Amino acid sequence: MLTDCDIDVSVPGQVVDAGMRSVLFVKVDGRPYRTIWLNENSLSVDVIDQRWLPHAFRIATLRSVDEAATAIRDMWVRGAPLIGATAAYGIAFAMREDASDENLDRACDLLLSTRPTAVNLRWALERMRAALRNRARSERATLAWKEAAAISDEDVETCRRIGEHGLQILRELAGKKDGAALNVLTHCNAGWLACVDWGTALSPVYMAHDAGIPLHVWVDETRPRNQGAALTAFELGSHRVPHTIISDNAGGHYMRNGEVDLCIVGADRVAANGDVANKIGTYLKALAAHANDVPFYVALPASTVDWKTAQGDIIPIEERSADEITHMTGRLDNGGIARIEIGAPGSPAANPAFDITPAGLVTGLITERGTCAASRDGLLSLYPEHKGQERT
Amino acid sequence: MLTDCDIDVSVPGQVVDAGMRSVLFVKVDGRPYRTIWLNENSLSVDVIDQRWLPHAFRIATLRSVDEAATAIRDMWVRGAPLIGATAAYGIAFAMREDASDENLDRACDLLLSTRPTAVNLRWALERMRAALRNRARSERATLAWKEAAAISDEDVETCRRIGEHGLQILRELAGKKDGAALNVLTHCNAGWLACVDWGTALSPVYMAHDAGIPLHVWVDETRPRNQGAALTAFELGSHRVPHTIISDNAGGHYMRNGEVDLCIVGADRVAANGDVANKIGTYLKALAAHANDVPFYVALPASTVDWKTAQGDIIPIEERSADEITHMTGRLDNGGIARIEIGAPGSPAANPAFDITPAGLVTGLITERGTCAASRDGLLSLYPEHKGQERT
Repeated sequence: MLTDCDIDVSVPGQVVDAGMRSVLFVKVDGRPYRTIWLNENSLSVDVIDQRWLPHAFRIATLRSVDEAATAIRDMWVRGAPLIGATAAYGIAFAMREDASDENLDRACDLLLSTRPTAVNLRWALERMRAALRNRARSERATLAWKEAAAISDEDVETCRRIGEHGLQILRELAGKKDGAALNVLTHCNAGWLACVDWGTALSPVYMAHDAGIPLHVWVDETRPRNQGAALTAFELGSHRVPHTIISDNAGGHYMRNGEVDLCIVGADRVAANGDVANKIGTYLKALAAHANDVPFYVALPASTVDWKTAQGDIIPIEERSADEITHMTGRLDNGGIARIEIGAPGSPAANPAFDITPAGLVTGLITERGTCAASRDGLLSLYPEHKGQERT
Repeated sequence: MLTDCDIDVSVPGQVVDAGMRSVLFVKVDGRPYRTIWLNENSLSVDVIDQRWLPHAFRIATLRSVDEAATAIRDMWVRGAPLIGATAAYGIAFAMREDASDENLDRACDLLLSTRPTAVNLRWALERMRAALRNRARSERATLAWKEAAAISDEDVETCRRIGEHGLQILRELAGKKDGAALNVLTHCNAGWLACVDWGTALSPVYMAHDAGIPLHVWVDETRPRNQGAALTAFELGSHRVPHTIISDNAGGHYMRNGEVDLCIVGADRVAANGDVANKIGTYLKALAAHANDVPFYVALPASTVDWKTAQGDIIPIEERSADEITHMTGRLDNGGIARIEIGAPGSPAANPAFDITPAGLVTGLITERGTCAASRDGLLSLYPEHKGQERT
């Protein structure tokens, strides 16, 4: 059982034996995994430690709110929906230790501070608070575990529905291709590794592939952390979806050449007006799509909509370590993992992790309730219960 | 004398001792180098082997047309003007061995086949042919060396003039900044390492810096070969020009935020209508500049204009090895050079090396004769001698 495979994870950046203490890809292939799951002892959760992909498939065990916070901050787990699910379990850990209001506040503050851009984190914490509010301390640990599990389970169903709605779009576009493969471009990883299962942007891709629609995915490598080349390509390869890794620089060239039929990306936060915060570089692809009449879709669950943020320009953009730009981790010919310096020594680097794509560049938002225009009215047509709640 | 430093270069991709048999940066600092120079024996030329930068400063000696072709094809030297100069010396090597017309044809064909996009290669070969045509075989070796040296010397002067014309633009834009640093964004390397000296896009930057204009350069790392992080950052650092390496994904974010005052890039070929072929990803930055009212300049010598190509869409785009996408070379903590695999094993990759930026996105072309609009009329206003020669 992989759920018993409790691996201490070495710090990336050191040369380690990648073959040791790791589960190899082949055991993943064809087997459905979630990215986070409760252990049989019900005291800990296991996650796929995504820092090692695609070079090794490793499982890390989280046992405390501090470990959950570390896993989010240091990107053992990433992707807006998975960050939310992990934070929910973090609250469950905290409640098991000390179910006081004070500890609930402390745990929420700690988890909220880990990463600033993905709003699913705040959404999950608010939902956990709502579930625990006004409940006796003695009940809270049990309730928290239950709510965290519900968040995970619901995320799977939400992503499945996003896939169904997106499938309609892919099916329609594929119908114009006379049997040729539909070329989809995606940026970063918004697949099952970014969620609990299925994914957001990749959920329609998996469903279309499974439905026999011929398609091919251009995978932006997504510097600096290479989530495209490392995670999306790993996912698509495991699922046997035809794909090609390209540099982030190449997407515009392929769009000009008519070799991209649509773009689909995920989102870390969508403002009430439909502006999209997503992985750095998304904006450049949206500009190229707009210039070349390529449909540009953003797939997201409702938990990614920040009704309290009127527009994208006020979404905080996380600035990450310059090391992610100047250094790179990968696999040596001998199978070991090594970190190398790639930039000119002594040159400073800057590393904004997200950018804002204005709603005007987005063809549509694919959600669990259907597809809508990237606008206030579009969002409210699917989520009327938020009417009046959004800031303008 | 560094010109005596004849180094056999190991194949990148193997772990080698970077400290061995190499000249360290510090010896470059403050000393003017050209990228290619004739040895005192007048039988060989030395070049900076740019595959090793920024990790080691290595000199490679070229002694034959085959070695010149290898140096161009495998990118020991790169950058449109430097490719032209190296090809010219390649012809000189060939003429020393066999000055027949047949061997001249063979040498030209070999060199022309090395890289398809940069038109300076064809320009230099045509110029060498013109210098040798109708001359006695006995004269050709001497004439060829002289012509190759002239091409190198003229490139230095051409780039110096590009710098002077570009300086006027930078000075004017800096005047609006109230003493704050002028933020310049550049892509790839169009500095002295891409030419014989000075550079094209970076020549105005060096002149502005030397003139005391406060400026700061955003350096696109320029995947997949990282010429920005490796070469441009190395150049700017050596010249003490303030700069910051960023991922190729980040430029759009900084432009939206008003943190870029202008973009300057080089070119591998400019069509007669002003369309620009340059390093893959240039087009995306031009789109972002256009969307955010950021001036976007292309700096080039006349030898980069392809009067015979009516528009950018018919310029051949070099497809390079997928290895450049899936693997990366850099420096280990112990100083050794290592190559690592970064993509998902088994995933295919595609690697177009250039893209086309339509003339309509280009604010102006900075040439050795001044700055003009990126259009047929603009180019002909500076180069009237080409009137009627260009294809439409």
